[in-house]
Amino acid sequence: MKSARVAYGGALHTAVPHEQGLQLADGRVLAEEQVVWLPPFEVGTVIALGLNYADHVKELSKELTITAKDEPLVFFKGPSALIGHRGFTRRPKDLSFMHYECELAVVIGATAHQIKAVDAMRHVAGYTVCNDYAFRDYLENWYRPNLRVKNRDGATVLGPWFVDAADVPDPHALTLRTFVNGRQTQQGHTSNMVNDIPALVEYLSSFMTLRAGDVILTGTPDGVVNVDVGDEVITEIEGIGRLLNTIVGDETFGR
Amino acid sequence: MKSARVAYGGALHTAVPHEQGLQLADGRVLAEEQVVWLPPFEVGTVIALGLNYADHVKELSKELTITAKDEPLVFFKGPSALIGHRGFTRRPKDLSFMHYECELAVVIGATAHQIKAVDAMRHVAGYTVCNDYAFRDYLENWYRPNLRVKNRDGATVLGPWFVDAADVPDPHALTLRTFVNGRQTQQGHTSNMVNDIPALVEYLSSFMTLRAGDVILTGTPDGVVNVDVGDEVITEIEGIGRLLNTIVGDETFGR
Repeated sequence: MKSARVAYGGALHTAVPHEQGLQLADGRVLAEEQVVWLPPFEVGTVIALGLNYADHVKELSKELTITAKDEPLVFFKGPSALIGHRGFTRRPKDLSFMHYECELAVVIGATAHQIKAVDAMRHVAGYTVCNDYAFRDYLENWYRPNLRVKNRDGATVLGPWFVDAADVPDPHALTLRTFVNGRQTQQGHTSNMVNDIPALVEYLSSFMTLRAGDVILTGTPDGVVNVDVGDEVITEIEGIGRLLNTIVGDETFGR
Repeated sequence: MKSARVAYGGALHTAVPHEQGLQLADGRVLAEEQVVWLPPFEVGTVIALGLNYADHVKELSKELTITAKDEPLVFFKGPSALIGHRGFTRRPKDLSFMHYECELAVVIGATAHQIKAVDAMRHVAGYTVCNDYAFRDYLENWYRPNLRVKNRDGATVLGPWFVDAADVPDPHALTLRTFVNGRQTQQGHTSNMVNDIPALVEYLSSFMTLRAGDVILTGTPDGVVNVDVGDEVITEIEGIGRLLNTIVGDETFGR
């Protein structure tokens, strides 16, 4: 089962996939460009992972100042960063390097507190695709990705579909790909996570309660390249979805 | 005008100060220990500051690995960390060092996006007191206070009162004090912030939209000492409030 949240005709709707695009709960069939796509569920707290793919860590190895890490690099995202499928992300004027990050987003379905890894998957409701942009010029420290780098308005894209966990037999066996203007620039596999989903649920729930709607963004593999104004970026995860996003100029929003 | 949110007699209420404790909106007068105090307003996104008092930076100077900083050290707190006045904060078993942090909490009242410092105070609705605990054993890097250090369940106390901005002529002229079991252990003054409130609103709103109910925790002065199970901690800010919190053992919550 896949579901989306969209705005159409003056109201919010839930929708399911249809061969012509999507179908609203009231039966109407629409093309995907006819609606405004929102993040596909009511999003709670968003927890992001840095440096959680071995190949991506290797890709950055010249720039990393610390190599030994004994716990996951986790940080929060705020709600103003979140947008849905087919949304627009601003590229600040005069920025030299901004990159996408294709990530498997894990959605918590049931309260999790001090959960052991072996029980963790029972707390996962499902998955979606995330494209979590980073604005590299502002990075001061890989181990402290500050808010200016990782929490700009509209720079975390989620969707298009929420996919039930029951439909994803093995979330650690999925291919991730990113395409910029149709050309593939990133490919990875969820089997290469440094900390897998059960480990992350165990770690996080050891000190904070996870609630339904909370999201864990599990990190990105190697292959991150600069994107520019006008670029169309598709982040795709096998069986989960194909998420489109367009880079726009900062002046697009005025001021 | 001061207001609180409390639970009493099976329902949530707003309350105002009364010489006997507090008065509910329906007129009932109660002692402060008769109710459960919640954070005093509907809390949105919580943004915390590290190392924002010059004296506190000096206090930690032996442990700091970086001295020059060109932008505020900001990070998010999640909702599971938040509790109200007279709440309980767990001290993990086997921890060696846990400390309070008395902080002025600034509450945003109107959407702020790309606001200049000179206009910033118009976006501030009011203030409350925060005691934002840190669990030093888990700290790997002062510039990257990870979630295990700064986002444990119930480790960020807010209250008791929300105080209208109109009643605080100068938020940069307030004395902060912390008392552990009645003995004063911390004293500072909001005039010593490295980044003052207008600077923080300008900085944050330059890349993310601030919304009504969002909170900026403006950092703590020097004088942070270890607290133990059974300690009563009062963080007090002149004209804003006196916030009580008790440290309990981790086993208090089971598992």
